[in-house]
Parts: sequence; structure tokens; C-alpha cells
Amino acid sequence: HKELIRLKTGISLNIKTILIKDKTKKRVFGNAIKITDDYTSIMNDPDINLVVELVGGVSTAKELLLCAISKGKHVVTANKALLADCGVAVVAAANEIGVKVGFEASVCGGIPLIRSISKGLVADKIDFFCGIVNGTCNYILTQMTDNHLSFADALSNATNSGFCEADPTLDINGQDAAQKLAILAALSFGANIRLGDIHTEGIKNIRLEDVLIAEHFGYKIKHLVVGRNTGQSLELRATPVLVDKKHPLANVNNEYNAMLIRSSAIGELIFSGKGAGPLPTSAAVLADDIEIAADLKTEKYSNNMFAYWDNKPVLDAGEAESEYYLRVPITDKPGVIGAIATILGSNNVSIKRADAELVRGAEDAGNVSILTHKSYEKQMSASINDICTLPSLRGTPVAIRIGIC
Amino acid sequence: HKELIRLKTGISLNIKTILIKDKTKKRVFGNAIKITDDYTSIMNDPDINLVVELVGGVSTAKELLLCAISKGKHVVTANKALLADCGVAVVAAANEIGVKVGFEASVCGGIPLIRSISKGLVADKIDFFCGIVNGTCNYILTQMTDNHLSFADALSNATNSGFCEADPTLDINGQDAAQKLAILAALSFGANIRLGDIHTEGIKNIRLEDVLIAEHFGYKIKHLVVGRNTGQSLELRATPVLVDKKHPLANVNNEYNAMLIRSSAIGELIFSGKGAGPLPTSAAVLADDIEIAADLKTEKYSNNMFAYWDNKPVLDAGEAESEYYLRVPITDKPGVIGAIATILGSNNVSIKRADAELVRGAEDAGNVSILTHKSYEKQMSASINDICTLPSLRGTPVAIRIGIC
Repeated sequence: HKELIRLKTGISLNIKTILIKDKTKKRVFGNAIKITDDYTSIMNDPDINLVVELVGGVSTAKELLLCAISKGKHVVTANKALLADCGVAVVAAANEIGVKVGFEASVCGGIPLIRSISKGLVADKIDFFCGIVNGTCNYILTQMTDNHLSFADALSNATNSGFCEADPTLDINGQDAAQKLAILAALSFGANIRLGDIHTEGIKNIRLEDVLIAEHFGYKIKHLVVGRNTGQSLELRATPVLVDKKHPLANVNNEYNAMLIRSSAIGELIFSGKGAGPLPTSAAVLADDIEIAADLKTEKYSNNMFAYWDNKPVLDAGEAESEYYLRVPITDKPGVIGAIATILGSNNVSIKRADAELVRGAEDAGNVSILTHKSYEKQMSASINDICTLPSLRGTPVAIRIGIC
Repeated sequence: HKELIRLKTGISLNIKTILIKDKTKKRVFGNAIKITDDYTSIMNDPDINLVVELVGGVSTAKELLLCAISKGKHVVTANKALLADCGVAVVAAANEIGVKVGFEASVCGGIPLIRSISKGLVADKIDFFCGIVNGTCNYILTQMTDNHLSFADALSNATNSGFCEADPTLDINGQDAAQKLAILAALSFGANIRLGDIHTEGIKNIRLEDVLIAEHFGYKIKHLVVGRNTGQSLELRATPVLVDKKHPLANVNNEYNAMLIRSSAIGELIFSGKGAGPLPTSAAVLADDIEIAADLKTEKYSNNMFAYWDNKPVLDAGEAESEYYLRVPITDKPGVIGAIATILGSNNVSIKRADAELVRGAEDAGNVSILTHKSYEKQMSASINDICTLPSLRGTPVAIRIGIC
């Protein structure tokens, strides 16, 4: 979306150098991009003002980030293990030098959750949050629930569908979720959380029979992180939970993540979306990159909202298609449905279903209710105009669109 | 949350002057706050660097905002009518002077939606969005659906519960939703939307019988804004829609708002929360104020994430309370349930329900599944330790928490 980003924000992001581990591995990058296995060539390049760390793991990643910061470069990372382990140290180093740290991609990649907590809810007091932050666990549990697979089959299913790391240990044992919880709790409650203080249980002991028994009692099993400020202490856990099947979190399935937040001013907020994957993660990393680049660009403020980049016309309402619900209040007489159906047909509106019912207690006042196939709004309007001429009409016909897509 | 905001961000927000219309009306403000009915005293005060506009309406509000901008003051507004009408002009004036415009509170107050679209999804291409943005309509339709009230009764119910303006015309006829749609479409699609181009239908013709018929067919009626980039044009409408009752938007009720966004990288995102009300709106206005104040404060970057302000201990996991699901795999013998129940009782775990079932096809292998009342984790752990000594045990007991709160 390079050109779209430029139109939206006036910013052109350019990748100058990519650090790789194995130079012999075949890769396809643009010609203008330099490839290196020597990170000092990036750190010492005065042209580079932003370093994105996507290597994973803690020790090398930390070394790279601290080096970039010490050279006055802004940093963006998707590394939850690093942030859970030493986010404080990285941010403190950045604040000392005066560079920015972005980490939107570290938790629930596709959902702008870090931004929402640290910017959107900055004036609010968060009391409680809970959510689904590990897509692998959620995929496995969903497959067990929906398709009655065993844990082993659901796991291999997740691996084959690409919803699982080569080594899923950290997902299955809850550690990945606990790392994300540490970050969320630090941002929400302003406390320095040690990963070891988080009560963590994985999903590897859950059997299909647990899923079935839970279902019998009206629950679905989900792996949740929970953070609660009790006033005296913080309750933090990353564990499986039986969730009432009518609860919104129970219906967040497969690779989707979701987060419920309760705060004193805003009340209850729910976010859901894809938590990981190359594209959502990239979008989150780029959002941080662009925010930093926007600050670099100007000395004075520039609002890029309402930066119009498209001059498409608004579709004429008559040309929009939808299925319709149509209720025609009529005086019940033989032939009324036929008359209405004929009008719809002559306007090319195709009927999926038609019902006629008397209004309770009335002698001959009734309603004809019709569900249509996809029709243009102009066809429906024309039909209603024609229906309004029917002598048996006893009120205003009501037409409402059906469905969201 | 003044002190909390200072701890989180290092920023102290101070209200210096409040502009009012009627000086004779009794109001309670802090002593340090100056009250005036002359706006020039605010505009000419060099101490004031941020003006928050909450007067509503278009013409006076526009005059105030443009005046503040011309004096080099940053502005924050919750005024959707103004932004839908002349957001472009306001932002252009601000960009020329180099001041910032914040308007998070203008759409879905409590949900950080403006920020998510314009910052979180800045690198993404939004193709479609639809959502519930008018709390009054949603409250009325929910009351009609859940309590089978007539439109008139639901409306007076909304007025009595405070979910309705004194004059609800703009809500009921869909104009309020259309204004919000104009802002969302401008931010999402980068197009300059004229309010008159939005196809708008209100809810005032919807009768209880429509709600009942929709229910009969598996739908709920919701008032939705829809924005779609068809490639050739933009489809924009604010109308009632029959939504499949299993769709997440069908289950957003009463004063709650929600928004579904589809974009090319992130996929499908859903936000839900309280759309309006004094507290959510204040939180959104303050989020903008704080973002602007943070930029004023420092010459170099300062990350306020991981700015720890609390040193509460993490609750010991054993002291956390929950209801539990417990499955004990046993060899079926008389007295097994009794033995397990006795162990739970001696650890002060109270049983809500116990079931015993043979594994299908097995001769004597079974499961005892138990739902408990609220218990401490340490009680449950101790119980499991004791259960593990039972001779009839044939596998690992599984304990999973029940419920979210």
C-alpha cells in the first residue's frame, strides 16, 4: 500500500537495508534494497532513522534494539517475549536518548489494541480485561469444539493450516499468552509485571471429552488471559476457561483474537480481529513506522485526517442492491397477494417468500410480508409507489434491507 | 482521573476558562476556573493553548473553532454535525497555521474508532465497514425487540432512561447516523462526502409487527451505517437493516455502539462499546487533549508506555477465586463419587453439580465431572492432590475455571 500510504499521509516509507542471518538463502527483495548479515552496517548508517526488529527471541533482539536506540534511531518491534522480559529497560533507554518505541504488533497484531489502551483510554482507569490472545490455542480449541477432533488431530490441523509455529510449545503451554498478558497488564495497570508472577496454564491436558462435557453444560472452552485490579493486588492469569456459550468471547473462533476491557468512564469495550499472520502484523508494524515518520516530517502539526486521496462518486442510492423485507398493510381480500406479487414482478423484484396474516383481533386487517431476492433500490421504490395505488392498502408499506454484506 | 493521568503521562491538564451562554444558570465548577460568556477573552488569552468545543450545532461552533485556530490554539471537538458539514475546512485551516485538531469523541464516543481508523489502520486499505452508531435508535429497537414495546412506548422509555436527546428528531430520522457515516467514510475511503449524497432512512416507520415478523424469519432490526468501496463508487447508507440474529452486530443492544471494518491486510475487525454519554465522551475528549499536551511538553520523544505508576503486588494464584469444572477419570466402582466429593468437602470446595458417565464402549472406565461453586485455587489444587491418591483414578484430573468475571 505504499502509494495509498503516501496519499493518506504524505509519507513515503523506504526500506534501505535488511539484516538477514543466512546470506545463501534465496530471497526476493526489490533491487534498491541492500541485504546484509552485518548489523553494524545498519547501525552506523546515518541515512537510517528507524529500525524495525522482527528477529524474535530475547537476547539478540535486545542487543539490536539497544544498539539502534544508542545510535539515536527510532525502533519498532513485534517482539512480545522481549517486551515482557525487558520492555522497561528498552523504553527507559529510548526515553534517555529521546527516540520512540513502537510495539503495536506485539499483542493481537491486527487489532489496534496497544494504541487503544495507551492512547484511546489514556484518560480512563482500566479495572479489568480478559481476552483471547493466542490464535493457535483458539484454533485448536475451536476445531475440538466445532468438529469434535481430538487435541492431537486439532493440533496437526492447526499445523497444516499454518496457524501454528513449527514448534508450538510456547503457544500450547500458555507462555505466549502470558507474555502478552504481561505487556497488557503493564499498560493497563501501570505495574511492572514479572512474567514468573503470572499464573499460567496451557491447553495440552484438555481432552475432547472436556469440550463435550463443557458443551453439555452450556459452555465453550477458551484460553483466556485475565487481568483484574482488585484494589489491593493484581489478579493475572493465562489459563483455559469455560465461557458461557452466549458470551461474545465464546463466539470468537479459530485464529481470531478478542479483548474485553472494563474501565471506569468508558464502561465495557470489546475488540476482535485477526491476532497474527504476516499481513496483520505488517499493518501493525507499518502503523508504528508511519506515526514515527509523521513526527519526523514536520516541525509544526499537520493533521492527515481528511487528507482526501480519492474522488470516487457516491453510488446513486437507486443503484444499490440488497435483499428486502417488505410489509404491506392490507385489507384482506382474495387476490391481494397476487396483486402485490404482480407489481413486484413487473418491477423485476424477485420474491423469495410471501406470507399473509390477519392482525390479531381484527376482522379483515392484515399484513402481507415478503422477503425478496437481491433487488435494486430503484426497483423496490418503484414497486412501493405502485403498491400505494392498490385500493386494499390500509397503511404505509415498510421496506427494510436484509443482511450486512 | 487527573492524578492518574499525571502518573500515566506526566501531564497535568488544567482548565482555565469555561465559556457559557447563560451566566445566571447555577453551575458547580472548581474555584480556580474562570467563567465567561465572552469568547474573545478565551481566544485572546495567551495562556490557553487548547480549546475544547462542546457547544454543538454548526455555525457558532465553526466560528469558535476557526477563531481558536487563527489564534494558534489547538482544538478538540465532539461535534459530528460540524465535521460532517465542514471538517475539511477546519482541518485545512488548522494545517495552514500548524495546530492540531482532535475529534475522537465525534463518532462512537467511548470506542477509540477515529484513532483506530486513522492511526491503527493507516497502512491498510479499508474496503467495507458497517455498524451501529446511534445509541437512541439502537435503544428503541432493542426495547421493541426484547420487550415487545411499540415504537412510541420504546421512545418514551428511551427518553425516561436518558438515552435520548430532548429533541430526538435527528436520531430517529437517521441524520445523526448519516453525519457519523460522512466522517467515517471520509477517513476510511479518503473521499470528500457531501451529507446530501448519503442515502438516509430513519426508524420512525418501523412497527412492532415488523420486529416480530423479522424475529420469525431469524432476524433482528438494527439501524446501521454502511460504507463500501465498490471500486467504481462508494456505497453509503444509513438505514434500518434486518440482521441475522447470530451476527455479532445483532447482539449489540440498547445504548451500545459497534463497528465492523473489513480491510485488505487486517481482515475483519469488530469494535463495540458505549457510543455516547457524559463519561465516555469526556474520556474521548481527554484522550485528544492529552495527545496534544504530550506533544507540547517535549522537544524530543518521550514514550509514556511502561510509565509505571502503581506497585501493587500480583495476587498469589492460590488466593484467586473461581468456579471450577473438574473432570476425574476413574475406574467405575461404587463409592467413587462419594470419595471425590468427600475430598472436595474436606478442602472446602462446594459442589454445584456432579455427574458420572462411562466412556462410550469401555467396560468400566468413566469420568466424574463436577461443577463447583466459587473456590480458591489453593483449595482446588489441594483437592486434586488428594484425588491423585485415589486407587480408582485412571488418568490425570482436569480442572478448568468457569466464567469470565
